[in-house]
Amino acid sequence: MKIAVLGSGMVGRTMAIDLAQKHDVTSFDASEHALDILKSKSSNTKTVKTDLKAYSNYSNLLQDFDLIITAVPGFMGFNTLKAVIEAGKNVVDISFFPEDALVLDALAKQKNVTAITDCGVAPGVSNLVIGYYNTIMDINSFECYVGGLPKTRKKPFEYKAPFSPIDVIEEYTRPARLKENGQIVVKPAMTEVELMDFDEVGTLECFNTDGLRSILYTMPHVPNLKEKTLRYPGHAELIVALQRSGFFSEEIINYKGKEIKPLEYTSAILLNEWKLGQEEEEFTIMKVVVKGKMSGADKTIEYSMLDRFDNASKTSSMSRTTGYTCTAAANAFAEGLITKKGVFPPELIGDDKKVFDYVINYLKERNVNWIKKEY
Amino acid sequence: MKIAVLGSGMVGRTMAIDLAQKHDVTSFDASEHALDILKSKSSNTKTVKTDLKAYSNYSNLLQDFDLIITAVPGFMGFNTLKAVIEAGKNVVDISFFPEDALVLDALAKQKNVTAITDCGVAPGVSNLVIGYYNTIMDINSFECYVGGLPKTRKKPFEYKAPFSPIDVIEEYTRPARLKENGQIVVKPAMTEVELMDFDEVGTLECFNTDGLRSILYTMPHVPNLKEKTLRYPGHAELIVALQRSGFFSEEIINYKGKEIKPLEYTSAILLNEWKLGQEEEEFTIMKVVVKGKMSGADKTIEYSMLDRFDNASKTSSMSRTTGYTCTAAANAFAEGLITKKGVFPPELIGDDKKVFDYVINYLKERNVNWIKKEY
Repeated sequence: MKIAVLGSGMVGRTMAIDLAQKHDVTSFDASEHALDILKSKSSNTKTVKTDLKAYSNYSNLLQDFDLIITAVPGFMGFNTLKAVIEAGKNVVDISFFPEDALVLDALAKQKNVTAITDCGVAPGVSNLVIGYYNTIMDINSFECYVGGLPKTRKKPFEYKAPFSPIDVIEEYTRPARLKENGQIVVKPAMTEVELMDFDEVGTLECFNTDGLRSILYTMPHVPNLKEKTLRYPGHAELIVALQRSGFFSEEIINYKGKEIKPLEYTSAILLNEWKLGQEEEEFTIMKVVVKGKMSGADKTIEYSMLDRFDNASKTSSMSRTTGYTCTAAANAFAEGLITKKGVFPPELIGDDKKVFDYVINYLKERNVNWIKKEY
Repeated sequence: MKIAVLGSGMVGRTMAIDLAQKHDVTSFDASEHALDILKSKSSNTKTVKTDLKAYSNYSNLLQDFDLIITAVPGFMGFNTLKAVIEAGKNVVDISFFPEDALVLDALAKQKNVTAITDCGVAPGVSNLVIGYYNTIMDINSFECYVGGLPKTRKKPFEYKAPFSPIDVIEEYTRPARLKENGQIVVKPAMTEVELMDFDEVGTLECFNTDGLRSILYTMPHVPNLKEKTLRYPGHAELIVALQRSGFFSEEIINYKGKEIKPLEYTSAILLNEWKLGQEEEEFTIMKVVVKGKMSGADKTIEYSMLDRFDNASKTSSMSRTTGYTCTAAANAFAEGLITKKGVFPPELIGDDKKVFDYVINYLKERNVNWIKKEY
């Protein structure tokens, strides 16, 4: 297939290199520097410098392509996806935008295209898991625990942001929606801090963040849904301390004649403090737990993953675990396994066992190992 | 005596009202509002609105006065003191400025005036204690622990600044000079956090801050000197977390086209967070420990004070414990107990038992009780 990858950040680049093994790939980005990095790592991907916000040009830009991958910053994601669908192109997206992608479903059906959204690690694999097990189980609860963490623990935050730090701050402030006993409930982010023990990594903490996204609406019959973010212990307490003392406030305060919006400058400081080095080792840790009944008997299914920075290719774990889930779906589409038209978050393609197994296997081939436990 | 009080903040006001019991007092301030508050609380003090930075006018302004009390912000303190001495006036100062007051000693002698500096609680009473006990003991070590704390403990800092918050931040960043085994050593502020138990208040923590000031130089024969600040436990850890992650940095960082100096913005937020309400209850807690030999035998002297917000007059503990030490010295001067000329931090007037006892007794009459223990 001829595939266009929009966005050549670390994830976009990782996906372009992976897809180029089987397909004719062109990467697009506004940044010459980003495209240069891609060119230095791969000789069989084409690159085009372009303004990805010039949406009216998309029909022209994407004319020759069979499939589009969208990996642009979250604030652009929805508009980019919409422009791709309007251009009549199939698409797999990992741009993680705040808007509801499902509003584009009618447009996608009208344009006769397949659009798979939120196809990363979380959202992504977690959605696939609930999507598949929903077809063979009566699910009572779904829990997802996920974190991207630096290998080196430097105080005070013991954290570096493996994806956009501004999205991390968003995640720490946006109220978390979850489902308890059939009701959608809203709790402040950072609440219900618990300790969790993991092999190798040791004890982490988890806390509420607003990560369920489409699952809240596509799985109305599942009474309990939650997603919690994983960090090294003590992190949440420090974030909450900053929040409680005004460092995240959006109310202007006056100081020496200047007007200051605390959130803005705190973001500047944290972005600086949380900047992950280009070749700094990090890892992704995740656990998805589905509980319910299978053939009338109690059943628990766990999918766990611990994936580390790849030293050979100097590629971050976050970009590989996110990117390869997306390219797995892209290849599944290329092989004709996904034919339905419309907008589909991964739980709505995971309901097909062939697709679910394809993605898990694809990831395994690239050393992203999802270990299943069943009891 | 005719006494001029320069500065009518809470401490200046407290002192003016106290001195007006026996003397003819005029308070000076640039702020009409500050003077109005004084007028509302006291009918027998005069008030004059004036620009206290107009130093060339001091000879004129202070012409009729016998004694000056200086209670201006720290950044103005040195220049104000200098202008008062140059105007040939006796003075007692609590302005807590960073410059070395002793450089004005020659000028004060030449002008034939008495200038008592740093005459608050710490510096202040701590200096008096070492000054007096130095005359009857061979001191091996001097330790001062002091804090002004809010009664209500609100997380995360459990702190409100009873004096200038900007001075608190200064104190948290300026390297702490202390003396160990005869050597002056410099340690970062906030280090050597220890827990200390107190009656009523419970457990606090203490840590190094640069509070010894003149004592470092006037007591060269004392081998061990330290001053530590008291806070509720956990406070230092949070400050250090902010320091380590760049919130106190003076290096400009760029964010969305703006240049940001983190320390400046952090100061704005902390000033806001640490603002003590006008009638918010706080307390001052302090312990001074002098160890050495008296008549050849080991001796330890402790002076302890726990003073609370005065609900009757709605006056803060900090302003009373600071202010009344200063007015004690002013009255001691008025009664002819202090006649030497020059600049004297309190350890250099505390060497006279009559002065030492006078101040301690004066404070006791005003319900600021210093409890002595000896063993």
